Amino acid sequence: MEGVDILPHERSKTQFDVDAMKIVWAGSRHAFEVSDRMARLVASDPAFQKDNRTRQGRKELFKNTLRKATYAWKRIVELRLTEEEAGRLRFFVDEPAFTDLHWVSSTPCFALFVCLFVSINVFVDLIFKGRGQGTEEQQQKWLPLAYKMQIIGCYAQTELGHGSNVQGLETTATFDPDKDEFIIHSPTLTSSKWWPGGLGKVATHAIVYARLITNGEEHGVHGFIVQLRSLDDHMPLPGITIGDIGMKFGNGAYNTMDNGVLTFDHFRIPRTQMLMRVLQVTREGKCVQSSVPRQLIYGTMVFVRQTIVADASSALSRAVCIATRYSAVRRQFGSQDGVETQVIDYKTQQNRLFPLLASAYAFRFVGEWLKWLYTDVTQRLQANDFSTLPEAHACTAGLKSVTTTATADAIEECRKLCGGHGYLCASGLPELFAVYVPACTYEGDNVVLLLQVARFLVKTASQLGSGKKPTGTTAYLGRVQDLMQCRCEVQTAEDWLKPSVMLEAFEARSARMCVDRAQNLSKFANPEDGFAELSADLVEVAVAHCQLIVVSKKRLVACNLEFTFFSLIHSDQEALVLTWINHEATTNEPNTYTFETISALSISGVWFIEKLQQDIPGNGVKQQLQSLCYIYALNLLHKHLGDFLSTGCITPKQASLANDQLRSLYSQIRPNAIALVDAFNYTDHYLGSVLGRYDGNVYPKLYEEAWKDPLNDSVVPDGYNEYIRPMLKQQLRNARL
Amino acid sequence: MEGVDILPHERSKTQFDVDAMKIVWAGSRHAFEVSDRMARLVASDPAFQKDNRTRQGRKELFKNTLRKATYAWKRIVELRLTEEEAGRLRFFVDEPAFTDLHWVSSTPCFALFVCLFVSINVFVDLIFKGRGQGTEEQQQKWLPLAYKMQIIGCYAQTELGHGSNVQGLETTATFDPDKDEFIIHSPTLTSSKWWPGGLGKVATHAIVYARLITNGEEHGVHGFIVQLRSLDDHMPLPGITIGDIGMKFGNGAYNTMDNGVLTFDHFRIPRTQMLMRVLQVTREGKCVQSSVPRQLIYGTMVFVRQTIVADASSALSRAVCIATRYSAVRRQFGSQDGVETQVIDYKTQQNRLFPLLASAYAFRFVGEWLKWLYTDVTQRLQANDFSTLPEAHACTAGLKSVTTTATADAIEECRKLCGGHGYLCASGLPELFAVYVPACTYEGDNVVLLLQVARFLVKTASQLGSGKKPTGTTAYLGRVQDLMQCRCEVQTAEDWLKPSVMLEAFEARSARMCVDRAQNLSKFANPEDGFAELSADLVEVAVAHCQLIVVSKKRLVACNLEFTFFSLIHSDQEALVLTWINHEATTNEPNTYTFETISALSISGVWFIEKLQQDIPGNGVKQQLQSLCYIYALNLLHKHLGDFLSTGCITPKQASLANDQLRSLYSQIRPNAIALVDAFNYTDHYLGSVLGRYDGNVYPKLYEEAWKDPLNDSVVPDGYNEYIRPMLKQQLRNARL
Repeated sequence: MEGVDILPHERSKTQFDVDAMKIVWAGSRHAFEVSDRMARLVASDPAFQKDNRTRQGRKELFKNTLRKATYAWKRIVELRLTEEEAGRLRFFVDEPAFTDLHWVSSTPCFALFVCLFVSINVFVDLIFKGRGQGTEEQQQKWLPLAYKMQIIGCYAQTELGHGSNVQGLETTATFDPDKDEFIIHSPTLTSSKWWPGGLGKVATHAIVYARLITNGEEHGVHGFIVQLRSLDDHMPLPGITIGDIGMKFGNGAYNTMDNGVLTFDHFRIPRTQMLMRVLQVTREGKCVQSSVPRQLIYGTMVFVRQTIVADASSALSRAVCIATRYSAVRRQFGSQDGVETQVIDYKTQQNRLFPLLASAYAFRFVGEWLKWLYTDVTQRLQANDFSTLPEAHACTAGLKSVTTTATADAIEECRKLCGGHGYLCASGLPELFAVYVPACTYEGDNVVLLLQVARFLVKTASQLGSGKKPTGTTAYLGRVQDLMQCRCEVQTAEDWLKPSVMLEAFEARSARMCVDRAQNLSKFANPEDGFAELSADLVEVAVAHCQLIVVSKKRLVACNLEFTFFSLIHSDQEALVLTWINHEATTNEPNTYTFETISALSISGVWFIEKLQQDIPGNGVKQQLQSLCYIYALNLLHKHLGDFLSTGCITPKQASLANDQLRSLYSQIRPNAIALVDAFNYTDHYLGSVLGRYDGNVYPKLYEEAWKDPLNDSVVPDGYNEYIRPMLKQQLRNARL
Repeated sequence: MEGVDILPHERSKTQFDVDAMKIVWAGSRHAFEVSDRMARLVASDPAFQKDNRTRQGRKELFKNTLRKATYAWKRIVELRLTEEEAGRLRFFVDEPAFTDLHWVSSTPCFALFVCLFVSINVFVDLIFKGRGQGTEEQQQKWLPLAYKMQIIGCYAQTELGHGSNVQGLETTATFDPDKDEFIIHSPTLTSSKWWPGGLGKVATHAIVYARLITNGEEHGVHGFIVQLRSLDDHMPLPGITIGDIGMKFGNGAYNTMDNGVLTFDHFRIPRTQMLMRVLQVTREGKCVQSSVPRQLIYGTMVFVRQTIVADASSALSRAVCIATRYSAVRRQFGSQDGVETQVIDYKTQQNRLFPLLASAYAFRFVGEWLKWLYTDVTQRLQANDFSTLPEAHACTAGLKSVTTTATADAIEECRKLCGGHGYLCASGLPELFAVYVPACTYEGDNVVLLLQVARFLVKTASQLGSGKKPTGTTAYLGRVQDLMQCRCEVQTAEDWLKPSVMLEAFEARSARMCVDRAQNLSKFANPEDGFAELSADLVEVAVAHCQLIVVSKKRLVACNLEFTFFSLIHSDQEALVLTWINHEATTNEPNTYTFETISALSISGVWFIEKLQQDIPGNGVKQQLQSLCYIYALNLLHKHLGDFLSTGCITPKQASLANDQLRSLYSQIRPNAIALVDAFNYTDHYLGSVLGRYDGNVYPKLYEEAWKDPLNDSVVPDGYNEYIRPMLKQQLRNARL
């Protein structure tokens, strides 16, 4: 059977309604339709062609990105696209560019590690919508300019020698009361701004973060609007040096973006260009705190991390789609009838691939839920309700870390699952990896974030004795007495398919690890010393907790994919969800807000209730999600078996039964694997992979693609006469090399 | 403290003799001196400059590689370098090129998955030294041509649709008795040769693997010498189509190599160009088996996998060197005195970095030992002694898989350990990763190899009842009764520093897993069905076994770094080693050959005895190796805790003590970390990393490097007038994009 016959044959075996699953994946019928329309728009427009990207030199690549980004902007204006449509269009153009963040009109504004994603137009967020740090006046002045692209901004925070630690920034902004100006200066080489996307070659303005100095005193790090380049000829203004920081990982990848370096030599800006929403500097140089609470900025962090989790599911599902399709097309080694076996039929392949497929679905739903969380947090912040912030912060930090680490590893695993051909750029996977991996570092290094989560957990655990009842994602710690003693009831492999059993195992694991680490910490005289010494162990309890969040459903804790899954599957849960929604609707008490409520609402708000009302979950869709859900959880259990066993949550025998159940689930998923990746509804343009083609016509297209390499421009290579011929003809002695 | 002050300060804290360690790392004083001399030769020659590699387009990059490879060859001839010297020179040039394998004069000749590394000059090995498949006559004709580079060969085995499974190749070689010729033909698109290095643009000849057909009958896959290009003008000969297969992962990386595609349209070669050492085709077209045993070719596999393990330690040590130095230079977040803390002082960093440092040393010594094993196997094969082959094969297959997987993951981990700057090509790490990762796929996919090991283990276990005593690497299975019942004696963290305790834990884990898997397999009526169904579990027991090989010493099993380590440390072992050597010398019985003997000899042969005799282990060297050894083993224990606990080899309490010990070892290694990577003796040229510079002068050089990017050729970027300006000036409506 040829490649073009295999995938149709695979699709004919599907046991569920793929169209219904596409809507589940998209989030709603509306979201599906917008996404589908934009994907086709991009795929059908030759201006957005991208398959030559890895063959272009840096200059050519960058110029082409300028063209595409400008063209996309033009199309958005011409077609009068909504913000949602423009966002999807940008997504499917699939090329990091200076215009990215204008379209989603939002961006981080604090504590970035690497500004890679953060190109433009930060003004739109920093000053817009009350989320940012600009005053009303500043918004009125700058927003229209930014929104129409009359200026192009970038976000200049990180410095050559300073990443995670914002308080370590060296750039200074010294107030000169004589001229009513700030003098922006780079006192050292390590104070050079470094990494901001869009800075190197494009941005006309920047939000520059610098140490504020007035009257000889330091007042911490603040943001300043600084014009960088002339709006007439694009030349950097006197006192400003700007350049690109050079090649990054991968061929195309992030080399389409002009991450930049920027230094100031006593550059002056008007006092009014300091972002003064939180702190004002008066004409006399006095610092005045405004009444606006600083916590506001944390709301943006929740937003940014939500988009990162959503990006994780996109990147992961894309890699899984490629690897799954090619695993069906590719054959290696014989079976009885002389035809080689499809690689996807090997259990070793399934054992590596199917958990990644399950993770793609898991992260998709977690991302959807976080989108809701962001809206909720924003509304609460505007009402000066900060009560949910610490937990929301820990929750999003942990999920950002767990999902991006898993996704980066998964993309590379998918590449390996494609064998040798995965190493070709034509597979799309090398570029996908290269463009994805910085997600583990920016917006908080993943390990640093897990330590923050661990700190939150330990604090919660330490307060257990004082009678303070943990809520939300940590509510299970309130039942720590039970969880320290509970025994897993699994006696057969099928027992692992009981949600309550699975959840208890994950809760017990996390709770027992938490108690164990808290006890170890208590042995140190100085808690901070203990925290430093035991940090590697603490990271592990943070991971356990975050995995519980994803897996859990019983207590309706936050961010629960599995809640989503289980709720779909076990109708007795549905009543519970509705109960919570009613509770929220009737009580309407912001202060009794719990994550239980969030969860219930998230499901309802996003797609669950809609599904219930329309009564179209789709034939077989539930069963597939159920299988994926258990694969996800059981695979985690196997991967972290040491945790489960060392805390005595399960027995070795039960672990072995979990493995048996996992194998059985693989067999259930196998006939549906192609349809499950079809449900992502990705165009071949977006996938950008010969191996992942929808039609399975891999080998002829791979062959065709090879000839496009510049090396094939001529049959005899450039360099033959100078190097190869003299070698063959034994004339190297006098050759000039 | 500036970067340039930090590393000297670090070096001043060193507690061991770095020069002595350099020799331990190199293998011998002689090896150190050769390596050191060649490294300096390459580093000091501007012709070998490589720091512009990631900025070059494909054509420019490839032409430059042609120049370098030819120049290197010229230098080798001019300087009359020995084979060893030439090998080291090539190593330090550090750029995959068509000439690679000429210099080491050896290459794989069977069962390649991807011919990525295998460029030229395969003739030298295939026909040379009796290792290959050519007859004496063929050797006499082709070797001199190949050796002088009058022809350039490549190894054309894998096809577009066929990788691991050599028997699935489709290219045909049909004997035409009328003309006494073979007709080489590509009957399908998927039969196109695909991947061979050097094929795309350079090679004049190839060893082509094809299905032999004579008198209408198939006789399996054999090798044929085929001229591809004219020696006059380098044009492909009529009937032959050749091209490059296109861009691969990374910027420079393997894009310096012309991996190629090749199809034949009824191309004719003389009958005498079939490699006929094993099978001959007579003038009449009859097939005649020669008396040469087929097992000979397996010897080459041992060789190839030995070089792959050696490459693993090189790549890993390079990444670790970069990450360790930059972790000392880089500071993040405050400490008490206001100066930010060196990143290397964080326990989370140590917990990720130091086990990789330990692995680099571990793989280095395993590679040294395998070098000896290859020599031994070759000598035995020439004496028609095949008794050690199955075990040698399983052992090298497993070690290849375990070391390459660990190294690929470790390089990426090192990149992440460098924070955002690790994402810059200037860090050297993206390219190192991209150029390294195919090692997980070529020469046997790592998972496929582990399944072979598992098959060997299960077979051994299944024969335990029959009274057949397992030997060598599986000898511990002979004590399976004991190992099923033994209880780990650890009561304090320090108890983990007893070699016997550590070894027993690893042996018990592997043995118990082996028995468990064998029992599960026995439940299947058809063993092959069971093997397929349980393959994912079987991979795990193979990993456990291979890790035991690396960790073990007590029974003197093969490939034991830890044997090396422990032997250095515990002098009671030394007598034992000498006993074995004497045993070998006096008995001289090839058939009683065991891995115990190999191990003893390996140590002696490579560097252990030499060290003992010269009595210069170096001040403190033993202690450092000891610490690294335990870090390596305890980290494995922690990572695979599920195995140890589920098989009841250790208790959760003991696991917790192991963790305590690990932290303590990190503190012992910390002051020596910089010196331990200095001991690799890598030049800045070879490292190719601004972050890993010997002098620690990271930031000024990173800044300097940025300006070399082509995007910085002009201040205003190409594309400003066409794209940026119209956007800023709101003139997009009529812009041509």
